Amino acid sequence: MNGAAFIISSAMKAGIDICFANPGTTEMPLVNALDSVPGMRAVLGLFEGVCTGAADGYARMAGKPAMTVLHLGPGFGNGIANLHNARRARSPMLNVVGEHASWHLPFDPLLAMDIEALAGSVSAWCRTAKTQDALADDTRKAISEALNGRISTLIVPSDFQLARIADRKIVLPEKEKHPVEEREVEQAVDLLRKGEKCALILGGHALSHRGLMTAARIQSKIHCDLFYDTFPARLEQGAGYPHMYRIPYLPEMALEVLKPYDTILCIGTRAPVAFFGYAGLPSLFVNDNQKKIVMDRADSAIVDALWMIAQAIHAPEAPDPGFLSSLKRPEMPAGDLDGAKACAILAAIQPENAIVVEEAITNSLTYHSVINGCPKFTLLSLTGGAIGQGPASATGAAIACPDRPVINFQADGSAMYTVQSLWTQARENLNVTTLICSNRSYDILKMEMARSGNLTPGANAKRMTDLSGINWVKLGESMGVASVPVSTCEGMALALEKALTAAGPHLIELMIG
Amino acid sequence: MNGAAFIISSAMKAGIDICFANPGTTEMPLVNALDSVPGMRAVLGLFEGVCTGAADGYARMAGKPAMTVLHLGPGFGNGIANLHNARRARSPMLNVVGEHASWHLPFDPLLAMDIEALAGSVSAWCRTAKTQDALADDTRKAISEALNGRISTLIVPSDFQLARIADRKIVLPEKEKHPVEEREVEQAVDLLRKGEKCALILGGHALSHRGLMTAARIQSKIHCDLFYDTFPARLEQGAGYPHMYRIPYLPEMALEVLKPYDTILCIGTRAPVAFFGYAGLPSLFVNDNQKKIVMDRADSAIVDALWMIAQAIHAPEAPDPGFLSSLKRPEMPAGDLDGAKACAILAAIQPENAIVVEEAITNSLTYHSVINGCPKFTLLSLTGGAIGQGPASATGAAIACPDRPVINFQADGSAMYTVQSLWTQARENLNVTTLICSNRSYDILKMEMARSGNLTPGANAKRMTDLSGINWVKLGESMGVASVPVSTCEGMALALEKALTAAGPHLIELMIG
Repeated sequence: MNGAAFIISSAMKAGIDICFANPGTTEMPLVNALDSVPGMRAVLGLFEGVCTGAADGYARMAGKPAMTVLHLGPGFGNGIANLHNARRARSPMLNVVGEHASWHLPFDPLLAMDIEALAGSVSAWCRTAKTQDALADDTRKAISEALNGRISTLIVPSDFQLARIADRKIVLPEKEKHPVEEREVEQAVDLLRKGEKCALILGGHALSHRGLMTAARIQSKIHCDLFYDTFPARLEQGAGYPHMYRIPYLPEMALEVLKPYDTILCIGTRAPVAFFGYAGLPSLFVNDNQKKIVMDRADSAIVDALWMIAQAIHAPEAPDPGFLSSLKRPEMPAGDLDGAKACAILAAIQPENAIVVEEAITNSLTYHSVINGCPKFTLLSLTGGAIGQGPASATGAAIACPDRPVINFQADGSAMYTVQSLWTQARENLNVTTLICSNRSYDILKMEMARSGNLTPGANAKRMTDLSGINWVKLGESMGVASVPVSTCEGMALALEKALTAAGPHLIELMIG
Repeated sequence: MNGAAFIISSAMKAGIDICFANPGTTEMPLVNALDSVPGMRAVLGLFEGVCTGAADGYARMAGKPAMTVLHLGPGFGNGIANLHNARRARSPMLNVVGEHASWHLPFDPLLAMDIEALAGSVSAWCRTAKTQDALADDTRKAISEALNGRISTLIVPSDFQLARIADRKIVLPEKEKHPVEEREVEQAVDLLRKGEKCALILGGHALSHRGLMTAARIQSKIHCDLFYDTFPARLEQGAGYPHMYRIPYLPEMALEVLKPYDTILCIGTRAPVAFFGYAGLPSLFVNDNQKKIVMDRADSAIVDALWMIAQAIHAPEAPDPGFLSSLKRPEMPAGDLDGAKACAILAAIQPENAIVVEEAITNSLTYHSVINGCPKFTLLSLTGGAIGQGPASATGAAIACPDRPVINFQADGSAMYTVQSLWTQARENLNVTTLICSNRSYDILKMEMARSGNLTPGANAKRMTDLSGINWVKLGESMGVASVPVSTCEGMALALEKALTAAGPHLIELMIG
């Protein structure tokens, strides 16, 4: 067994059986090893941002890491933006990056660059295999990191991939345990017992089914309000779950929304921070007069903490149904489409158990206020602000959950960043319906330009926000995705219903504004 | 004047009047400043790899840096692959990257990441403005680095972009002078005087008009052979220039080609290094028995060195016409297209003064052997091996030289990496004709897979090289580029002639194999 086969076998044994890849010559032994172990599925992305974004979406839905195989520094570089999103989503990932043969690298071949500098910026753990003897240990460590919820990046010179592995023992890494400390829970309970007006801000695993139902128990007891992060990695939502509010994106609105609370308890997330800093507005949405406890941890033990709090305050065993949303779809709007209408139509139609990957930016502003009454579904969002997450993440989510419909509610400008995702969706015949909000504009930048005081932008500034000239129907079709344009509410409803009943990927260009 | 306006004004004063940009909120003051100085032209790319690749192509043709404006770490990350190519091309560039407001950054907002770690890997100079008072000096230094031929990256917190600049003095940086040392020249001359069989390997500015004509004078005197780097940043070629050989890509072939020479003189480039390391083959193409002198420098003084050598060996004032190529187009092939035929057709048709941006990978293997007899033209190639250079670089070259036809001879797999370039070509109505070699395969990887001994690839390995399912005509049209498919030689010739006579961008999908 050579080094490459050892890496692939070890990953398989650890349950990592999906590999999103765009390999090159320095990864050829890894490519050849992909078929050496039954069960490994390799999925090609035509740009590395597709691979890393898909691995992120996969991890969010499968609850375990996928593997990527990336080509040297430039290949890793292309994957950085979606690795950044994955890091903010706290998604695990196992990246294996080829490096020039150890004896060749000192000659600085043209493709050589400082891969570790790039990988270090987005990986919790990163190492270049320094000798072929060390590769077995390096592999175990890389897999252990990924299985324990983190992004690990293993850089492997091509000669070490080819070399015989002496130490062939595949050891399954232990799952780290970081139990909740009682003291933490007691502090939270003390605060809640004060009986003041309280907001529970939930993130991470606290937004899972069990997390939400436990939060609803707490809510039933103390009548707190429940919020979720502006950009949750994964949120279970819909009828039967407690009514949740999203922390608004703009500081003015977020401050206003959180102001009434005396007490703020953050579970599975940090205290909310403004997406950008604006002169005269604070960075933190929680003020000094508010009592605040932050119980932030990435793993599912945060749900145990929530449960311990519920028990300690003697919350009812089951939530009061009055705090749970009942099934109530928005009314179907009519006439010409706009962003708010598109949100209503999506919420009116999206099927039970759907996965909605939401990167619609300005067009989804009202979506979050109409989803409480939908049938239960899962929402994935743009966690790190690096645009181009949606199409790639939807691709990975569909691979993780082939039996669930995936709807990618997507801004046009952002979609262009990882537009190659459509090809992988077609190649793998994935059940992804992409709703492109085609407003032909970076609308969020127009808003920010106005906020910055530039109300009469000059020619250059105007050109920085104008995206006109993309035909999304042709673009979708060019990569094998059945695509239609719609400009009315009725058209969108019809096209969405149709796309959801037919297998394989679809794209609907929503002509907005 | 605020910091952003100071940066834009300083760049303009230094002659940097093109800005390839994809800005975000943290760059809004820079966007607003783009219109504060007359003459600055901002060009939007719908993905940062387009911006950095265009800036590279622009610099190669304009002989001066362009500016980019990129959004935070993820925006810079998306630009890394083509920055790597630019670094290998020794192209100058001025990157200005926004950063969160200095008072906001400590709160680790979602988009925050280690921009310097990313920028350092591809920049000769990189700095984050630490105070608003330092910004003026930081700007001068960044511009000085770019004007002196290097990639500089200035990271500017948004509050410093907004702050008033006290020190508004715009100082034009001095051009560094690194004259050629006589000792270097003497060593080279001593070697050449030995009268042994000699190869001159030229790179960088030695491949300019003056460099080549001076090399031809040397050749006329000592009857050496002339080679160029496998991947030259910019090569002047065609009838009237000396006959040149390309250093082959594969080590076996390169070693064979260079073996006969006793003496190897590298001018404007280093001794050639294998693109990848293959077991049993050396990294260097020059062996220990060969006498070798390397005169490698990035600036145009290398042409002075060449001239000094020519004078010292008493080369004739003008090259012997016998060493110069005469006009001789390849014969026009007929029937179904393949890579070699496409090369011949391109060389048979490409107009005088064309700029050919060549990233056709396996399909261009024979192109380099048929271009000596073309009318004079300029060739740009994939300098760093980070695929996706061609479409972006062609975009920048067309902006630098609006009166010259640009032909992007382009592999399909590589084109997908910066496919968004087509949109900018349409938006700016650039005279770029893209010839997509649509073989629906990463053919180079198939070759490397066979070289690695995997002659019967399994299902996963096969999927890593198969690109089928892209309709390039729809893809081009989706972004506003007039596009046609051709599958015969006659069809390609007709379509290319037609595209070259009509203004604006065109795409021709060459159905190969």
